[in-house]
Amino acid sequence: MNGSTDRRFMALALSLGRRGLGRVWPNPNVGCVIVRDGRIVGRGRTADDGRPHAETQALAQAGDAARGATAYVTLEPCAHHGRTPPCAEALVAAGVARVVVAAQDPDPRVAGRGLERLRAAGIVVETGLMEAQARRDMAGFLSRVERGRPFVTLKLATSLDGRIATGSGESRWITGPAARARVHMMRARHDAVMVGGGTARADDPMLDVRDLGIDRQPVRVVLSRRLDLPIDGRLARTAGTVPLWLCHEEGTDTAPWQAVGARSLPCKLASGQIDPAAALGALAEAGLTRVFCEGGAGLAASLLGTGLVDELVLFTAGLAIGAEGTPALSAMGIDALAKAPRLTLVTQERVGADVMSVWRPTKGAEGDRPG
Amino acid sequence: MNGSTDRRFMALALSLGRRGLGRVWPNPNVGCVIVRDGRIVGRGRTADDGRPHAETQALAQAGDAARGATAYVTLEPCAHHGRTPPCAEALVAAGVARVVVAAQDPDPRVAGRGLERLRAAGIVVETGLMEAQARRDMAGFLSRVERGRPFVTLKLATSLDGRIATGSGESRWITGPAARARVHMMRARHDAVMVGGGTARADDPMLDVRDLGIDRQPVRVVLSRRLDLPIDGRLARTAGTVPLWLCHEEGTDTAPWQAVGARSLPCKLASGQIDPAAALGALAEAGLTRVFCEGGAGLAASLLGTGLVDELVLFTAGLAIGAEGTPALSAMGIDALAKAPRLTLVTQERVGADVMSVWRPTKGAEGDRPG
Repeated sequence: MNGSTDRRFMALALSLGRRGLGRVWPNPNVGCVIVRDGRIVGRGRTADDGRPHAETQALAQAGDAARGATAYVTLEPCAHHGRTPPCAEALVAAGVARVVVAAQDPDPRVAGRGLERLRAAGIVVETGLMEAQARRDMAGFLSRVERGRPFVTLKLATSLDGRIATGSGESRWITGPAARARVHMMRARHDAVMVGGGTARADDPMLDVRDLGIDRQPVRVVLSRRLDLPIDGRLARTAGTVPLWLCHEEGTDTAPWQAVGARSLPCKLASGQIDPAAALGALAEAGLTRVFCEGGAGLAASLLGTGLVDELVLFTAGLAIGAEGTPALSAMGIDALAKAPRLTLVTQERVGADVMSVWRPTKGAEGDRPG
Repeated sequence: MNGSTDRRFMALALSLGRRGLGRVWPNPNVGCVIVRDGRIVGRGRTADDGRPHAETQALAQAGDAARGATAYVTLEPCAHHGRTPPCAEALVAAGVARVVVAAQDPDPRVAGRGLERLRAAGIVVETGLMEAQARRDMAGFLSRVERGRPFVTLKLATSLDGRIATGSGESRWITGPAARARVHMMRARHDAVMVGGGTARADDPMLDVRDLGIDRQPVRVVLSRRLDLPIDGRLARTAGTVPLWLCHEEGTDTAPWQAVGARSLPCKLASGQIDPAAALGALAEAGLTRVFCEGGAGLAASLLGTGLVDELVLFTAGLAIGAEGTPALSAMGIDALAKAPRLTLVTQERVGADVMSVWRPTKGAEGDRPG
């Protein structure tokens, strides 16, 4: 089988894997395709909530056809006995002849042992095919394992002059319906939606995914030092049905929130606020791999200033608010341009009436301090 | 000759006309193509400084071949005797058989009389071909005649969060070299570059066109109520070679500025500042048709707030400055989103490392108060 055929099947496995974004935490969003004599005999992705794994599902679909087949897997098959038997064992047992892997698993329980197990059984193993794409697709899982924090996407939706509300606090709506629908799609592809306490108080948001026919809601995370949030707000009222996690200062009274079904994550402080790195650490510890932050200005500035943003999605709307408006980013203590966090443009496109641009931290730039 | 052939020749005439942008004020940037038996025998555009007119030049090129030919002209040929004989007469005298016109001339000295003169001589006259494009291309001239002010392009170059400088005033550079080169191209296509006095003081700018091999500089306009600008600054030092026009309060001492060769335009005030509408009126009176405003925040907010911006060019750069930075727009007195000036996206593209988006006032929107 030649390289371009291998790429085609791996691309399919990757696209299957991407369907798991926001649905499979704490596990990686793996995709798997099993091919025998040029024909696809099984396909799978990590199932919702993380299991069964992609290989298990693809093998079940393939049945006896897996014997002598090639398996394309976006991440090294697991080798450790968890709640399910390891996938490396399952591939061996099914009689697969060749396994093509995109990215190796940095999880210390796997880390090469999956590949060793396959080779020991006489299976031909190839690694590194479309690895860069696989690492991008599974950046959430990799970030959690390698950096101890989730992958963080920061969304800003501003006027032409970088404002997110008028001086009187009116913010609905700055961007148009197409941009807002896109934001809901993005929420659905993350494990959690996160805001600061000020935004939760000011906007009384639901932070859920709406109007997309989606059966599964991301966790809603609020960072609030003293939990001074309205207990009769929409977040509190719905905490029994859509997960609500609260990052707060240790020693805060959490009883009313636990009573409505919210989860409490005590975090240490930095500069009098919840330390965003500590909060992200706690969220990773709790299993989150991809977090979508929607502000407000203080949390956004804090994440950018501490190098904790992996991707920034900026919606620019066609209106001018002026300097009395609320800025998208609060004070960052930056006096020299050389100290400003720099980001590199990935894509830009029109979304309805607005411009959406996507940016990633510039490698090696001042202000880029990856965790 | 069929419609698509006509369109092809008119498109050529329009592209010739666009070459005159920023170079032909106070006259319109007209283009003309003369075609005989399907062959182009003459072409011309309004020459630098406004004359000879496009038709005169195209006819001179065509010579005897103009007899029986079709002339494609982007604007109705002039009918009044100015410094040159009217173009309508010249077309008649050359024996042109047919004249196709894109837009009619609203100049009260022309206003249909050019077309009448041609028809009276037995020439076949057709109007309205590609009129919308012609009106866009000649928007500066049309704005001056129809609204008594130049067409105004506002450029903003901001960080991701809408800042144009750090708190300490550092602004060089926020956008990259490709965006800055694009700005110089845009300056060259306007009659004048305009800034507020604060920007002239803070940045000591040249406001000229550099590094494009361009032989002609736009007028430099500064709005400064009391002319409290450094007389040893770069603008003042170069006023003898590149035009410098100053819009100031009546009664201000202009002697030092006249001594360095600057032109004085007294203007009335509004809210304690030079009234931007009055300044634009004075600039139109002085002949300008296209003005490129590059800030600062006060002038930009004032122009947007009073509906005096015809096109907004926004460069968004990949850095975050935070709320201590200088906002792109100063206070606008907008408390409700419904009162914010709305703009409609025209195009967006990547320019080097930055995003450039172009916006025009939304027709009929609140905050849109065309002059």
